[in-house]
Amino acid sequence: MHELIDELFIGSLGGKTLKEKKDSAVIRLGGESYAFTTDSYVVSPLFFPGGDIGRLAVSGTVNDLAVCGAKPLYISLGLVMEEGLPKKTLEKIVVSIGAASKEAGVEIVTGDTKVVERGACDKIFINTSGIGKIVYKGLEIGRIKHGDVVMVSGPIGDHAISVLSKREGLGFASNIKSDAVPLNGLISRIVKASAGIRFMRDPTRGGLGTTLNEIVRDGSFGIAIDEEAVPVRGTVRSACELLGYDPLYLACEGRVIVIAAREDAGRIVRAMKKDSLGRGSAVIGCITKEHKGRVYLRTKSGGKRIIDMLAGEQLPRIC
Amino acid sequence: MHELIDELFIGSLGGKTLKEKKDSAVIRLGGESYAFTTDSYVVSPLFFPGGDIGRLAVSGTVNDLAVCGAKPLYISLGLVMEEGLPKKTLEKIVVSIGAASKEAGVEIVTGDTKVVERGACDKIFINTSGIGKIVYKGLEIGRIKHGDVVMVSGPIGDHAISVLSKREGLGFASNIKSDAVPLNGLISRIVKASAGIRFMRDPTRGGLGTTLNEIVRDGSFGIAIDEEAVPVRGTVRSACELLGYDPLYLACEGRVIVIAAREDAGRIVRAMKKDSLGRGSAVIGCITKEHKGRVYLRTKSGGKRIIDMLAGEQLPRIC
Repeated sequence: MHELIDELFIGSLGGKTLKEKKDSAVIRLGGESYAFTTDSYVVSPLFFPGGDIGRLAVSGTVNDLAVCGAKPLYISLGLVMEEGLPKKTLEKIVVSIGAASKEAGVEIVTGDTKVVERGACDKIFINTSGIGKIVYKGLEIGRIKHGDVVMVSGPIGDHAISVLSKREGLGFASNIKSDAVPLNGLISRIVKASAGIRFMRDPTRGGLGTTLNEIVRDGSFGIAIDEEAVPVRGTVRSACELLGYDPLYLACEGRVIVIAAREDAGRIVRAMKKDSLGRGSAVIGCITKEHKGRVYLRTKSGGKRIIDMLAGEQLPRIC
Repeated sequence: MHELIDELFIGSLGGKTLKEKKDSAVIRLGGESYAFTTDSYVVSPLFFPGGDIGRLAVSGTVNDLAVCGAKPLYISLGLVMEEGLPKKTLEKIVVSIGAASKEAGVEIVTGDTKVVERGACDKIFINTSGIGKIVYKGLEIGRIKHGDVVMVSGPIGDHAISVLSKREGLGFASNIKSDAVPLNGLISRIVKASAGIRFMRDPTRGGLGTTLNEIVRDGSFGIAIDEEAVPVRGTVRSACELLGYDPLYLACEGRVIVIAAREDAGRIVRAMKKDSLGRGSAVIGCITKEHKGRVYLRTKSGGKRIIDMLAGEQLPRIC
């Protein structure tokens, strides 16, 4: 997918903005900087412990804006529905979209619905695009320095396991709730806590492992992660052992990776912990001069393991 | 669908902006007005005479912005693809998206791709959302006055019949090319030609008949259309007769309905005709005091026929 995006999309369509390959495009409107982002949601099943496709669609787009330092303002909503989708199902999803946008303080301003015949789409797909005003500038991979600290705002993989538990009927994991949540409130606490925030990103598809790989991609530094420091719930870990998944590649929909100056780490973690969405925050690693372009794990047993970009998708239709 | 939108979406999500139910939302950013719109494209087949889903996705969103008086600037691109979609097919579509955005002078700034398993979606669906700066203000249904003139920029129904000819293998109609085209250039000629433009809209899904019904919906005026004045190509008319369709409900993707002061009609039509995309422009009717909230056709035989809002879709997956 990364190659496809680089070659085909950026080759045929790019534009300097697209070339920057950020979670959100930074666009100029009336002399000010805004973030603009789009995401399609195809999660299956539509409802899972702790969330549903509607909550996911709002949270995901709000979070893509917020990690770019933007205050999310306006969201568009595009639905593709399969003929025969029960009205009750659609209602539940739309109500959930309404609740999540309220939670995030964004306004759904425009929408579109298309209905296709039975079998032409699996129940419902949702696209949300969002516009936010950049209020915290300069969050750039280019600002990351050797010695900076890598933090995560809570345990990883809850979203993926909650969807999987519903999809596969894994009873033992049914107490794991998706972390899907709009993070703009937490993120505004984070940027207020320190002027030393270099970069943020939400580890969605591909999880922490893939997201960190995207961050080291240009090869000017490496990232070292301490296996013991990465927060993973016991049930998520058990589910992974049972199913042969690596928690590092599990999608989150309500977590943020924060890279910041070492001296501000304590302050930032304290600020995150004050917010209910950041209670499980932890410092998980640091930026290194060695292993440039690589993410590596310092294992519990004292070894080192390279964490590669995930080839293919570990869990399809997780978002 | 209109009821569903009113009750469910506006009820659960609205938002004063959503309540306005325009083709594009008008949003305020940094003290200026911008238009923001979203559309999903599910057309089948993906390629048809004169266009493809990619060209459609760019043109449709550009046109939704332009009819609101906005200069289209930035477009987002969300793709949902079925596993096994040939790379060549995707390439052709992306190249077409690139060409159409160049034609329209807009930049694709952000994107997202999702792949679902075989059978979970029919080949590819595209969402485009767009942002434009409102440069021509005050295009409002509320500005329409009795006696105003209704124009259309060219023959109707070419898009629908081109898709249908490909879908159903109608050889005799295969010389009909879709009208799918970005209209922002033509529209900027139109607004320059007259200060008396009241309102514009592109007659896409549901065609001229449905779009005019949306315009009269609030009940303060009626619209009278002269059957003889409505431009329809001979082949399109024949296809309709054969298949039992009414040309008034056929989707266009490169036509604009313009409502303007009567005294400016000649000037506007002349301006449109100067542009290759408006060569087939015509005055087709006027705004009336009678039949408030209704669209009626003065037939060739001198009778009157009420043109209702289309119940259901005449042609599914036409855009």
